[in-house]
Amino acid sequence: MTGTESSTDHRQGGILEVAVLDLRGRDTTAFKTALSEAMPLIRRQPGCRSAELRPCLENPQRYLLLVNWADVAAHEDGFRRSEDYRRWRALLHGFYEPFPLVEHYGPPL
Amino acid sequence: MTGTESSTDHRQGGILEVAVLDLRGRDTTAFKTALSEAMPLIRRQPGCRSAELRPCLENPQRYLLLVNWADVAAHEDGFRRSEDYRRWRALLHGFYEPFPLVEHYGPPL
Repeated sequence: MTGTESSTDHRQGGILEVAVLDLRGRDTTAFKTALSEAMPLIRRQPGCRSAELRPCLENPQRYLLLVNWADVAAHEDGFRRSEDYRRWRALLHGFYEPFPLVEHYGPPL
Repeated sequence: MTGTESSTDHRQGGILEVAVLDLRGRDTTAFKTALSEAMPLIRRQPGCRSAELRPCLENPQRYLLLVNWADVAAHEDGFRRSEDYRRWRALLHGFYEPFPLVEHYGPPL
């Protein structure tokens, strides 16, 4: 991950996917290695404008995933039905406990 | 709120304040009116690079506050000890139930 993308992008009223990721274990090295393979998969999806993962400063096992999508369908009908999502899931889902709540937020008020 | 700011800003490794705001009542009109007065207060703080509030698409009583700060001190030692924060609190805190968890996230990995 380069850290050069912006978590929000106001072109055409895109939406923001937000997920708080709580890791099962304390060793985050394997998680970060998996992320380095996973983040390009989501960034190359049609309708994905940017994606980033930030570490929580108060809780070392918590991370925040922020993904800008053109619309909810790009995430739910596009990415989640793709081969890339199957690979994303295989790479990352084993690290989470509990399984994260994923929400979508509209453009800023 | 203009919606022209970006929720992240990677200059000098700033941090992101994140708060999920759950409103007590179903009428969001008064909340939005209060916000129109409150958001300029936080945006003018030293070290505040941008601030935005987004509505949750799955839950009409939920909002996400994202604030880019130069560092945690700008938020906790600066804003929270300011007169502007007292006004911010008076304007907004009565709308929340429960009181929101506020977390800080470091620069993107």
